[in-house]
Amino acid sequence: MIIVIKKNSDRKQLDNLTEWINGLGLKTHLSVGEHSTILGLVGDTSAVDIDLLRSMNIVESVKRIQEPFKKANRKFHPKDTVVDISGRRIGGEYFTFIAGPCSVESEKQIVSIAEAVKHAGAAFLRGGAYKPRTSPYAFQGLRESGLELLLKAKAETGLPIVTEVMSVRHIGLFKDVDIVQVGARNMQNFELLKELGRIDKPILLKRGLAATIEEWLMSAEYIMAEGNERVILCERGIRTFEPYTRNTLDLSAIPILKELTHLPVLVDPSHSSGLSRLVRPLSLAAAGVGADGLIVEVHNDPEHALCDGAQSVRPEQFAELAGKVRVILPMVNKKIDTNSIDLSPNLTRLG
Amino acid sequence: MIIVIKKNSDRKQLDNLTEWINGLGLKTHLSVGEHSTILGLVGDTSAVDIDLLRSMNIVESVKRIQEPFKKANRKFHPKDTVVDISGRRIGGEYFTFIAGPCSVESEKQIVSIAEAVKHAGAAFLRGGAYKPRTSPYAFQGLRESGLELLLKAKAETGLPIVTEVMSVRHIGLFKDVDIVQVGARNMQNFELLKELGRIDKPILLKRGLAATIEEWLMSAEYIMAEGNERVILCERGIRTFEPYTRNTLDLSAIPILKELTHLPVLVDPSHSSGLSRLVRPLSLAAAGVGADGLIVEVHNDPEHALCDGAQSVRPEQFAELAGKVRVILPMVNKKIDTNSIDLSPNLTRLG
Amino acid sequence: MIIVIKKNSDRKQLDNLTEWINGLGLKTHLSVGEHSTILGLVGDTSAVDIDLLRSMNIVESVKRIQEPFKKANRKFHPKDTVVDISGRRIGGEYFTFIAGPCSVESEKQIVSIAEAVKHAGAAFLRGGAYKPRTSPYAFQGLRESGLELLLKAKAETGLPIVTEVMSVRHIGLFKDVDIVQVGARNMQNFELLKELGRIDKPILLKRGLAATIEEWLMSAEYIMAEGNERVILCERGIRTFEPYTRNTLDLSAIPILKELTHLPVLVDPSHSSGLSRLVRPLSLAAAGVGADGLIVEVHNDPEHALCDGAQSVRPEQFAELAGKVRVILPMVNKKIDTNSIDLSPNLTRLG
Amino acid sequence: MIIVIKKNSDRKQLDNLTEWINGLGLKTHLSVGEHSTILGLVGDTSAVDIDLLRSMNIVESVKRIQEPFKKANRKFHPKDTVVDISGRRIGGEYFTFIAGPCSVESEKQIVSIAEAVKHAGAAFLRGGAYKPRTSPYAFQGLRESGLELLLKAKAETGLPIVTEVMSVRHIGLFKDVDIVQVGARNMQNFELLKELGRIDKPILLKRGLAATIEEWLMSAEYIMAEGNERVILCERGIRTFEPYTRNTLDLSAIPILKELTHLPVLVDPSHSSGLSRLVRPLSLAAAGVGADGLIVEVHNDPEHALCDGAQSVRPEQFAELAGKVRVILPMVNKKIDTNSIDLSPNLTRLG
Repeated sequence: MIIVIKKNSDRKQLDNLTEWINGLGLKTHLSVGEHSTILGLVGDTSAVDIDLLRSMNIVESVKRIQEPFKKANRKFHPKDTVVDISGRRIGGEYFTFIAGPCSVESEKQIVSIAEAVKHAGAAFLRGGAYKPRTSPYAFQGLRESGLELLLKAKAETGLPIVTEVMSVRHIGLFKDVDIVQVGARNMQNFELLKELGRIDKPILLKRGLAATIEEWLMSAEYIMAEGNERVILCERGIRTFEPYTRNTLDLSAIPILKELTHLPVLVDPSHSSGLSRLVRPLSLAAAGVGADGLIVEVHNDPEHALCDGAQSVRPEQFAELAGKVRVILPMVNKKIDTNSIDLSPNLTRLG
Repeated sequence: MIIVIKKNSDRKQLDNLTEWINGLGLKTHLSVGEHSTILGLVGDTSAVDIDLLRSMNIVESVKRIQEPFKKANRKFHPKDTVVDISGRRIGGEYFTFIAGPCSVESEKQIVSIAEAVKHAGAAFLRGGAYKPRTSPYAFQGLRESGLELLLKAKAETGLPIVTEVMSVRHIGLFKDVDIVQVGARNMQNFELLKELGRIDKPILLKRGLAATIEEWLMSAEYIMAEGNERVILCERGIRTFEPYTRNTLDLSAIPILKELTHLPVLVDPSHSSGLSRLVRPLSLAAAGVGADGLIVEVHNDPEHALCDGAQSVRPEQFAELAGKVRVILPMVNKKIDTNSIDLSPNLTRLG
Repeated sequence: MIIVIKKNSDRKQLDNLTEWINGLGLKTHLSVGEHSTILGLVGDTSAVDIDLLRSMNIVESVKRIQEPFKKANRKFHPKDTVVDISGRRIGGEYFTFIAGPCSVESEKQIVSIAEAVKHAGAAFLRGGAYKPRTSPYAFQGLRESGLELLLKAKAETGLPIVTEVMSVRHIGLFKDVDIVQVGARNMQNFELLKELGRIDKPILLKRGLAATIEEWLMSAEYIMAEGNERVILCERGIRTFEPYTRNTLDLSAIPILKELTHLPVLVDPSHSSGLSRLVRPLSLAAAGVGADGLIVEVHNDPEHALCDGAQSVRPEQFAELAGKVRVILPMVNKKIDTNSIDLSPNLTRLG
Repeated sequence: MIIVIKKNSDRKQLDNLTEWINGLGLKTHLSVGEHSTILGLVGDTSAVDIDLLRSMNIVESVKRIQEPFKKANRKFHPKDTVVDISGRRIGGEYFTFIAGPCSVESEKQIVSIAEAVKHAGAAFLRGGAYKPRTSPYAFQGLRESGLELLLKAKAETGLPIVTEVMSVRHIGLFKDVDIVQVGARNMQNFELLKELGRIDKPILLKRGLAATIEEWLMSAEYIMAEGNERVILCERGIRTFEPYTRNTLDLSAIPILKELTHLPVLVDPSHSSGLSRLVRPLSLAAAGVGADGLIVEVHNDPEHALCDGAQSVRPEQFAELAGKVRVILPMVNKKIDTNSIDLSPNLTRLG
């Protein structure tokens, strides 16, 4: 951390500042130039309050040299984290398809979609039981009974399940869920993150609409700092001024994250645009940019889906895009984990 | 709601759509033009899933004509909501000062600041017990014991208190808190909003960093739909590309909100910039633009504050800005609620 | 166009408005509902001033039903525009590589890079003679003599050239340039666009940093309205709050543009991130999302480039990424125009 | 400037970098720590290409310590610049009203508005002759004849005039214009800025929609570097995700600019929102936040204005807001320049 000291600052105040920093267990290095005086901080600055430093009279600006995240930082953990869920691996050299409907609607719906996406090559089933909706008057999900239906679909198909938690009060209900998802709107619900850091389950952490990459990694750090290091990131679009798409998918974030962190990074091509016809092109783009997998909304009857049908593709469209993605994978040194998928004839044909 | 139908759409599909809409209890009005066919929806469309409509094959676009919020909507409630807390009124013709430290640190600190801001004209004491911090390694607030210290300061000074809740698990601890604050990061923590909708306490709802005005009002609607109509909005800056200020205070939102809703709207001039020297100019601007009050971070020792000292002003600076704000109030047809303030000689002198 | 009329509006004012609209050669259709009164405008509304309508006392809101662009609109020109430059085709089924340095620096530099990118499969040479730089103290390009060096490189290699114009005063100097580029900062320099609409040369129009897709197409429309319909669009990143990348490449814009317009759309993977190590992943993503080509900064000595070395890849890196892109093209029904490229042995090997 | 060197970098490469920096006339200071190696640059770094440094293999990141602008920098020019136009002063302790229509439409229109705004206290007349419009099909201004009409209004009323230039080709026509405006869309039209730097006239430089404060000051620097130091800045809103207002007025920028630069800073309350009913609240806010003046769209018949009537107020509304602004000025240590205004009885009454 570098502190730029205001010109003509009082020497006494500078000594006080230096002493205060030393009191935090950090060393300092002063460099006095003609144009500026700079105080360098040496040591672990992750707990230093950068805002507090900025508030001091004699401080012109403060610049961070080291990233504030530690457990998520690739510098201290160079090898890719591979999250293993019942033998199905996410991260590293593997590319994973997660697919399913926006909302669980009925046993028939979720089981039939689960079977369809399994045959198309999905390794996990996704589906919303608790649904974050902008309007209190919109369908809020089947909630607890939605979770039960997901577990039935898992029992029928063998697909592990991914579903979103919206409140600390519900965590207990997720004990048979395989991957617990934190939605974009809860990315900085810190009390939820802390509690999820104390359970023994992989957490799929979606990026907040206005979250910088650094803030997102700090939210991962909240979970990891409590002991749960199985965090999977998921880019789903950020808020910009462009109205044609609901959000702007930030695919540049993927290679940046690959440098900064060892955690797996998935892409959600469905929510960012809110348009089903963008799912295929954005999926191929995500594969090309180096993502570790896709989480795709698939519905067998999108026009009658209870929510977000607009962004769902049909199972056959999902199978087609998955086939095309497989052609791209060798270009980015990725492959499908053969443990994860159903090697039925129709899949082989697609591949 | 207006649905633009794609050119050359199948008549059968259009009939199906019309029938489906009628099934929702809405009437339709079809207008076939040379260039476009438009289906108008007549009735209460607040529960219609606009995304679902967009997903349909024959739909080109959907445009909302009516706002999706109802209880917060000024159209259905033309008179300003005035929230009365122990005789201190917020909204309508009144301008309210809320002041206090970012974090509660000790009994001595919170009581002395409470006294100072009371003498400077604050009607409420704010102070953080539970603190949302980007980093898990930063100070997280005194939590439960911070709440107790706030209540002591209330007992000493008579100032009602405002403090932030971060989890549904803590709501029970807030029973003696006067105004419960929802922070920007939890603005779309819908499960928290629902539970706050069922308690009998005013809720101060801060705008999310990436929230549109409409989404913000929909979050207010979540609280109101559960029965708690005492919601106070608070603008605190949105996320933009400009790095000099932490966030960009959106003062244009204030007169827009005054048209759209009957709820009171405060401004937080401290968090948006993160710079104490911007608090005074932004406070005067907020008064000029027509806000119903200010929530200002005040600390008697900002350089040693445990968090966010950078954005705190000293009590004497607060008193000075409050004095200047009072000169502006008649220009916007606002006044101080004389029930709310300490009419000691030094205040009179400032006014 | 749909005009929502305020409740309880004066009938006389509504009649005046209707009459005024009819005077513009448009028909109107009035729909009076319980909750809202709507006036529909029928006819070509592209010249209607939507802001003027919004200003009227009785108007609550105005919503556009038809896109305001005409010549660029796919609805009126369903077939893809293919721009043919000396037999090298851009758009339609073709995927085009344009490559070269940020700035022209010397004859030796530009000729050697031109040869290198030609061998790697580029169909066009790019290079900056006039350079838009944020700082007046930074290198501003070789300007007129830079144009001469580009023409020498063209003579040596046969590669047509693409370079940026920054002022109407310089247009005359571009008579031997093959594609004239308009940079992001001049996307709404309307006087420049109008003059470029009167020359007989393809225009490569980069998206402005804060331009919506619609505004970008309106800028294309400025050129086309003057008679020059050979416009090529180029996505190069938009401004967002994320600081890790200089700009955020908006790849979702590509499939959206493919629906809205018949014009070719390229992607610039170099400027958006400002990081050379992101060029390859973003290029593969651009190919996957359906772009019509790439414009890539290539330098044989990036560390000593006079500007923007940070975002340049070396010729061998360009060749490698071009080879990978070729594998993706069949997935998006695209191919290389064999007229455009050098079929030397080393290229065949890469493909 | 601080360069963070990658861990385990090659010593030889570091020596090369150091030598190269020294070759630019700068000294270096190396600081080797356990966690990071930092190279500090000492001297005038305003011409150093920060992107080039970032491109180097051994460089992890580069952080600027000094602002890149010099002539606009308050550090090197602590006293406020006061621009004197025929005895009417802008900047320093003065608050200036500039008012007039969006577009010049006819002699009668511009003269009558000029008289009205003069009586209401405006010191300058604004009016558009060349109009930047998103659509080529919208009214483009009366252009050259619009300039003539403005000069007639000046002759009639004595009000100096402010109007926008859109092309280097038109600069010659502006010789009797008092203040030449550069619009938001041309803020980075660097060739235009350079030419305006060589004329002897104050330049009103509006902020670009996506321009950071630093980029805006660098555009001012372009003009000043050529010799013309009479630059007046004007905040007019930035592009954000919020759709209710056309742009988001960034009032926090005003006090920030007051620290960074000595140049005057005006606020345009009309364009940012695009809504006439926001002009008054935003004007009072701009006065409270410390702006040096306002540039307000005023029209005597907004509903029939040829452009942007939506954002124009009537003369009597302007007079009313000007009266309220005058009450706020003493709170921010500002006053009206009595040289600038018409001291007629009706004005005195308003004040």
